[in-house]
Amino acid sequence: MSELQPVMWKNNKLILLDQSRLPQEEKYMEITRHEQLIDAIKRLAVRGAPAIGVAAAYGAVTAAQEIKTNNLEEFKSELKSITRRIGASRPTAVNLTWAVERLENIAENAADIPGLKQDLLKEATNIHHEQIESDLRMAGIGAKLLKKGDTVLTHCNTGALATAGSGTALGIIKQAYSTGMITHVIATETRPLLQGSRLTAYELKKNGIPFHLITDSTAGALMKQGKINAVITGADRIAANGDTANKIGTYTLAVLAKEHRIPFYVAAPMSTVDIKIESGVEIEIEERPSYEVTSFQGVISSPEGINVYNPAFDVTPHDYISAIITERGIIREPYWS
Amino acid sequence: MSELQPVMWKNNKLILLDQSRLPQEEKYMEITRHEQLIDAIKRLAVRGAPAIGVAAAYGAVTAAQEIKTNNLEEFKSELKSITRRIGASRPTAVNLTWAVERLENIAENAADIPGLKQDLLKEATNIHHEQIESDLRMAGIGAKLLKKGDTVLTHCNTGALATAGSGTALGIIKQAYSTGMITHVIATETRPLLQGSRLTAYELKKNGIPFHLITDSTAGALMKQGKINAVITGADRIAANGDTANKIGTYTLAVLAKEHRIPFYVAAPMSTVDIKIESGVEIEIEERPSYEVTSFQGVISSPEGINVYNPAFDVTPHDYISAIITERGIIREPYWS
Repeated sequence: MSELQPVMWKNNKLILLDQSRLPQEEKYMEITRHEQLIDAIKRLAVRGAPAIGVAAAYGAVTAAQEIKTNNLEEFKSELKSITRRIGASRPTAVNLTWAVERLENIAENAADIPGLKQDLLKEATNIHHEQIESDLRMAGIGAKLLKKGDTVLTHCNTGALATAGSGTALGIIKQAYSTGMITHVIATETRPLLQGSRLTAYELKKNGIPFHLITDSTAGALMKQGKINAVITGADRIAANGDTANKIGTYTLAVLAKEHRIPFYVAAPMSTVDIKIESGVEIEIEERPSYEVTSFQGVISSPEGINVYNPAFDVTPHDYISAIITERGIIREPYWS
Repeated sequence: MSELQPVMWKNNKLILLDQSRLPQEEKYMEITRHEQLIDAIKRLAVRGAPAIGVAAAYGAVTAAQEIKTNNLEEFKSELKSITRRIGASRPTAVNLTWAVERLENIAENAADIPGLKQDLLKEATNIHHEQIESDLRMAGIGAKLLKKGDTVLTHCNTGALATAGSGTALGIIKQAYSTGMITHVIATETRPLLQGSRLTAYELKKNGIPFHLITDSTAGALMKQGKINAVITGADRIAANGDTANKIGTYTLAVLAKEHRIPFYVAAPMSTVDIKIESGVEIEIEERPSYEVTSFQGVISSPEGINVYNPAFDVTPHDYISAIITERGIIREPYWS
């Protein structure tokens, strides 16, 4: 079946599915200015580390369309100042930096402005196609880790909406279901922004895969009842030693999986691995605004003026991870260190 | 300072604070028919095992006011059929059964209807006053387990709103703060019904106690950062061996506390201990409607028609519990078995 398309390049324009409005509304936005893209990334209209990377790549093409000068060096300089800003729109996802750097390299080597624009689009399209192929390879590789009849628990959204391909963890789950391996999925709602109930439930339902939605804190009870056979999550940044930053709550699931002797897998493309950093200690964790916790879509759920701690991610140390599934194969300790 | 009053008997009527409307609105409801009480218990307008017990006790008085017959035996029979229904309004909290049984015993021994009505009110008032005294004793006992400078994490709401006294776990926290022992509280929001963000945050703010609100799945990350010194939760039913049913997510917090070598305390009055059952396996766990998870205060957050698993409680095995704090002292293994 055809996948959801969170990021598209159509009629020479970047089109984003506004994920902040799902599942109520499938609304697409035309991005014609890089400021719109930065805003979309910040407010999670486009989210998921690989999808942000693809959107940022096309965003560099959009940025090139905005620049007025005919002087090549000025053009390159203006472009770089914009791509730097796109690259800084969220701190944790390494794919964002990686995609922006690929586009910056293309721009640096360009000999003229029309060629530069063409090459940028070609490279952005390459990044997108590589993601699609990488997801498919990863799905085939990861599905082999699951057994017939398994119920798999996943966190946040790691599907088509998160990668602009078929997904990482959820791509594996879809593949394993289509080949008759797994029979049931448990999706955590993933507070505060409910990517599980809004997006994963939406994708699972569209794909006709049987699942139950649970609150994040129900995972432990289900594991204790013996109802979960494996946990698979995505990743936003992976250190050389395998320590993995992912959506807040991932670490808790990893601790629970260890306690119940359930395999805990991370699925991520190699572009998520940041071999420049040795361990998770070096990963910057984005703290997000308190209103994400004190309200939901405008409905206030807490007293006013209280303190909130709202990190978007946590770090799961490598020794809680059974294996990391990439498009190049299944990686185990000592990972890349 | 004066405590919040979730359950009151005023002008010969049961008055409940509608907790489902907090923190937006402090609205009190007059309960003149037992059906209103059953509805209030079911939709969690009154919640917290001890507060439900107190409300149910006064509810028996309300029920007696409704019965028209002048025949004593008919009166007793009608009353018992109503108190049975009140007792069955929620399955997990043992205080509910316990309070109803105390009132039923009073009714059984009555010699005439006016005397029966008086005795019911006296017993309901006794139960309420015993709860207030029990909470105060428990707070003094439990506060001694905490050390100067501790940051304590708590789950759900276990304060005045939950007991109609000063609270169990939150009562201890308030006491420990007032004597300068603990300096900071972490309150989990407690999905799906957000008793943490709606009620605990409200009580902590009213009491001027410094705290941060977090999503439930942020607890693991905070523990890993070494920022939590103790976890204290309440209980809805405790088996003779110490296995404790409490708000969903409690078990996860207990597993996390064990992994991080943080003491995990349960605070509950002896009325919560059900010595008739040997272990947690025998505790019936209430499953609640899916809309609690698929929507957030009336805002739909999931696709329609999906499956949800929404248990209100989970069971924490006794070996994850450092001690159970009661009004009669600190109990440790082998608990009551």
